[in-house]
Amino acid sequence: MNNFAFYNPTKIIFGKGQIKQLDKQIPKNAKVLITYGGGSVIKNGVMDAVKKELAKSDRAVFEFGGIEPNPKFETLMKAVLTVRGNNIDFLLAVGGGSVMDGTKFIAVASVSDEYFGKEEELLYLGFAGAQTEKILPLGTVATLPATGSEMNNGAVVTKGTDKLPFFHKEAYPQFSILDPEYTFSLPATQVANGVIDSFVHTVEQYVTYPAEGRFQDRTAEGILQTLVEIGKKTVDNPNDYDARANLVWCSTMALNGLIGSGVPQDWSVHMIGHELTALHGIDHAKTLAIVLPAMWKERKTQKKEKLIQYGERVFGIKTGTDDERVDSAIAKTEEFFHSLGVGTKLSDYGVGEKDIEPILENLKKHKMTALSEHGDVDLNVSEQVLRKAL
Amino acid sequence: MNNFAFYNPTKIIFGKGQIKQLDKQIPKNAKVLITYGGGSVIKNGVMDAVKKELAKSDRAVFEFGGIEPNPKFETLMKAVLTVRGNNIDFLLAVGGGSVMDGTKFIAVASVSDEYFGKEEELLYLGFAGAQTEKILPLGTVATLPATGSEMNNGAVVTKGTDKLPFFHKEAYPQFSILDPEYTFSLPATQVANGVIDSFVHTVEQYVTYPAEGRFQDRTAEGILQTLVEIGKKTVDNPNDYDARANLVWCSTMALNGLIGSGVPQDWSVHMIGHELTALHGIDHAKTLAIVLPAMWKERKTQKKEKLIQYGERVFGIKTGTDDERVDSAIAKTEEFFHSLGVGTKLSDYGVGEKDIEPILENLKKHKMTALSEHGDVDLNVSEQVLRKAL
Repeated sequence: MNNFAFYNPTKIIFGKGQIKQLDKQIPKNAKVLITYGGGSVIKNGVMDAVKKELAKSDRAVFEFGGIEPNPKFETLMKAVLTVRGNNIDFLLAVGGGSVMDGTKFIAVASVSDEYFGKEEELLYLGFAGAQTEKILPLGTVATLPATGSEMNNGAVVTKGTDKLPFFHKEAYPQFSILDPEYTFSLPATQVANGVIDSFVHTVEQYVTYPAEGRFQDRTAEGILQTLVEIGKKTVDNPNDYDARANLVWCSTMALNGLIGSGVPQDWSVHMIGHELTALHGIDHAKTLAIVLPAMWKERKTQKKEKLIQYGERVFGIKTGTDDERVDSAIAKTEEFFHSLGVGTKLSDYGVGEKDIEPILENLKKHKMTALSEHGDVDLNVSEQVLRKAL
Repeated sequence: MNNFAFYNPTKIIFGKGQIKQLDKQIPKNAKVLITYGGGSVIKNGVMDAVKKELAKSDRAVFEFGGIEPNPKFETLMKAVLTVRGNNIDFLLAVGGGSVMDGTKFIAVASVSDEYFGKEEELLYLGFAGAQTEKILPLGTVATLPATGSEMNNGAVVTKGTDKLPFFHKEAYPQFSILDPEYTFSLPATQVANGVIDSFVHTVEQYVTYPAEGRFQDRTAEGILQTLVEIGKKTVDNPNDYDARANLVWCSTMALNGLIGSGVPQDWSVHMIGHELTALHGIDHAKTLAIVLPAMWKERKTQKKEKLIQYGERVFGIKTGTDDERVDSAIAKTEEFFHSLGVGTKLSDYGVGEKDIEPILENLKKHKMTALSEHGDVDLNVSEQVLRKAL
């Protein structure tokens, strides 16, 4: 097992009707900015429930809507001006991953003296993250199980065709209220995306090479087994509380730092996927469904032992030669994605051979030329992966 | 899945040589009290390493040794006086569960105005815990994988023949440094105890009744499978880093709130076990090894579905009638404890039929008359359990 530090101070408040805990989580006299997206939280009644709780104490409540999927720097900067103009001292993200991600950026950018007037530079600090001293406190009422943003300190923000990772050591939500019923009104395609996003977050921290992280492996496998068990069920039966609750909790646990502590991590699938979203507007999760099987086909040798373990423990593949077991594990993964109604080829999304070069150029521009747990996924490997995904 | 809140702000710093992170974790000008036990940390060099790190900044460092296994109220009150007399503002527990548990009590008792002069009352607040406002910050350098105290807000403190649970909502260590190498010098019997303690912590939150907590079940099973895989190995080969690292991490994860969130919990084995320690001085873990199999034999009906699931997923028991599978699961558990050199009968520890009545009286005195996930383990059931353990 590798050395690690694990720290995650977010308080999770999980279950039916837990919005009633909201009033206790935010200072009574706070000036709160509610951030949200395209308005689905207004239609499904979540916003009303949030406002009703906030009104139980003497708070000033402001709103900022319109944070789009793959939240844009320009949009978030408008929210930063709202924060500054109204002396907001608490941010409450009500929505999915993009709203939560965007709110983390707002929390850092709006109170940083160092980056005042050049907030854009905060987006190019890479995985080391912003080191600014101050950050506004934030909480979330999460409405989409997918990104794990409700219990981590990371975000992804888009500027032009740059889809950029953003971290700050203090950007953990103070609390996240996760009511599975708040996700019942999601369209099936977004639920399928959430299942795949959680699945791929997990395998990026697990299908690498053996490192004697037995708890980490078993926990990752537990998330994957659960997603396989309840994935199609929760897409097809949105009002099945238990299936959805299991998706919500697995999606949070898939990316809160726990399963990746002390073991190698990959993330090359995500990095290539980000360019597909930036250049072709394909949903984040669908880019993962495209790139993951192709990556594994290209990287069978490097990931052989863990792919065999994954096949056996997640899909029960116990017979055949090593190569057959690896192929079976990849095929079962593709079948699982297909069962959720999600295509796993670039051609399913209108992307062809001619589009590969611009993707590689973007990877180069973003310095994504030494990806994977071994740092050996260079542009040549990425090209082979994309060709296998055609 | 049941509603739940999960919150755990302890920073875990895990691995070889991580003591080097200590200086960064404690304020530079702090007045630190190092708490420790019988002195093994002096013999094995951990104390020297701790002091060397603390001396890197201008801190006043005090020491309080002699916290015994099953830490006594009277001992801890001496430490409370040391804290008050020297205006200590940071507590650093260096040792195992008893030292960490005792230090949590010291952290609360030494700064409570409400309980000043009547600190003993803090011990009789039950699972609701102390609600005092102030608590001294504490950190740990943990040297024994067993209790999970390094990443939770609970403790057990003994007064006379009362072995009492103690909680405070803020009693999480700010940080815990877990270096598996610091546990290499432990005697085999303590390592075996640690394996069993971690194992029983896990099953008390898992072998109850089905509640659609799939992540929780799989994670609990992952801990149990790992302990079965590495338990004997790490007892027999104390210097095997990876085996020990897996024990250390599993033992922390077994009792940090994660696997018990949103699912039923039992704890009746612990409560009966505590009386065996209080009255007969049997090691905590050994009391669990005695009571657990007897409890399961007595409660086969109530725990049938989970015992079958446990047998299948942890020990691979997939054939036989339901009753046979339940019996097999219990037998495999006993075999596992025996493989660690630990007896599972009261008679192994010189306790007989005549000792049952005083144990039941103690349970009654401590209001432990409605235990288990169903609240139906009364004194009659406890008596049957103890008879089955003779």
